[in-house]
Amino acid sequence: MVDLLNLQAPLFLNQSKSQSLKPLEETFIKMVLDAWHTQVKQTDDVFNSLTDEQLLKEIAPGKNRGIYLLGHLTAVHDRMLPLLGFGDQRYPNLYKTFVESADKTENDLPSAEDLRNYWKETNNILSENFSKLSITEWFQKHNAVSETDFAKQPHRNKLNIIINRTNHLANHLGQLLLLKTRTAE
Amino acid sequence: MVDLLNLQAPLFLNQSKSQSLKPLEETFIKMVLDAWHTQVKQTDDVFNSLTDEQLLKEIAPGKNRGIYLLGHLTAVHDRMLPLLGFGDQRYPNLYKTFVESADKTENDLPSAEDLRNYWKETNNILSENFSKLSITEWFQKHNAVSETDFAKQPHRNKLNIIINRTNHLANHLGQLLLLKTRTAE
Repeated sequence: MVDLLNLQAPLFLNQSKSQSLKPLEETFIKMVLDAWHTQVKQTDDVFNSLTDEQLLKEIAPGKNRGIYLLGHLTAVHDRMLPLLGFGDQRYPNLYKTFVESADKTENDLPSAEDLRNYWKETNNILSENFSKLSITEWFQKHNAVSETDFAKQPHRNKLNIIINRTNHLANHLGQLLLLKTRTAE
Repeated sequence: MVDLLNLQAPLFLNQSKSQSLKPLEETFIKMVLDAWHTQVKQTDDVFNSLTDEQLLKEIAPGKNRGIYLLGHLTAVHDRMLPLLGFGDQRYPNLYKTFVESADKTENDLPSAEDLRNYWKETNNILSENFSKLSITEWFQKHNAVSETDFAKQPHRNKLNIIINRTNHLANHLGQLLLLKTRTAE
């Protein structure tokens, strides 16, 4: 918890020489985006290492299949577009299939090939939009919080969405890693 | 499926209408610590919900057991104490058993009861120390980076350790959730 007794003037008014050219906000945004990109890269590497056949296996007996998690992560990341003001979801149907429905309850899934493409495309679009956002914009409210609530809770900004979605991704990455050496069961 | 997406981060600061006037640095720190505390709380809830017998099960066939992940996470969090300048590791032996050694290669593990206590104690000590750190201190270098490197890479600060360790925890939390309804195999 932040100790209120330790409150000090904003650091960007009192930069150490190591940070003299970069506002602290920029450093903070880098920390958050680096963590996002690290988890996306690792997850991408796992998906690339898995065959379509491996994707059809369950991460553990009776649990979600790899292909469901591929669709799930793509749908959640696609939903970030409107949440962050980057435009409409591109694959709204995925949300119903891979977020609102449990695995193995929908028969008509997109192909693994299509899902792999949607996954890459969605993360690329997010990255492009991230790179265009100004420091000020990162600290503006996201689209799932009201102006009134945001005035009281300024941490509910766009950058906080990245922190939370990075953790969501990390939760599932840990599960996907279990598929890597899974042999037929 | 268990989805962590909609969980709201707990608020660790007293809310007040003056919060919008708080320095942005304080908001950053809150965002990062909220995410940490959320993942710790969820992991704690999973461990509390598992019996000692369930902890001895593998998260997936041939993979790590729950008890190994309990020791692993405790050892990694214990290592954060010296890294963040909070003092020495309290359980240095855990690091050898649960980080440097793979699961099922060491015969002489601590009891589940002891590990559960170490886990809680370690996170409590971290929390206490977090609450004492000033805004300025959070943006100072951690103890695994040199002064020279930090001058060029100011993102390698103490707060960044929290971001990275939160993702590490999230990776394993996703795996531990698989144990929750695991029946005998």
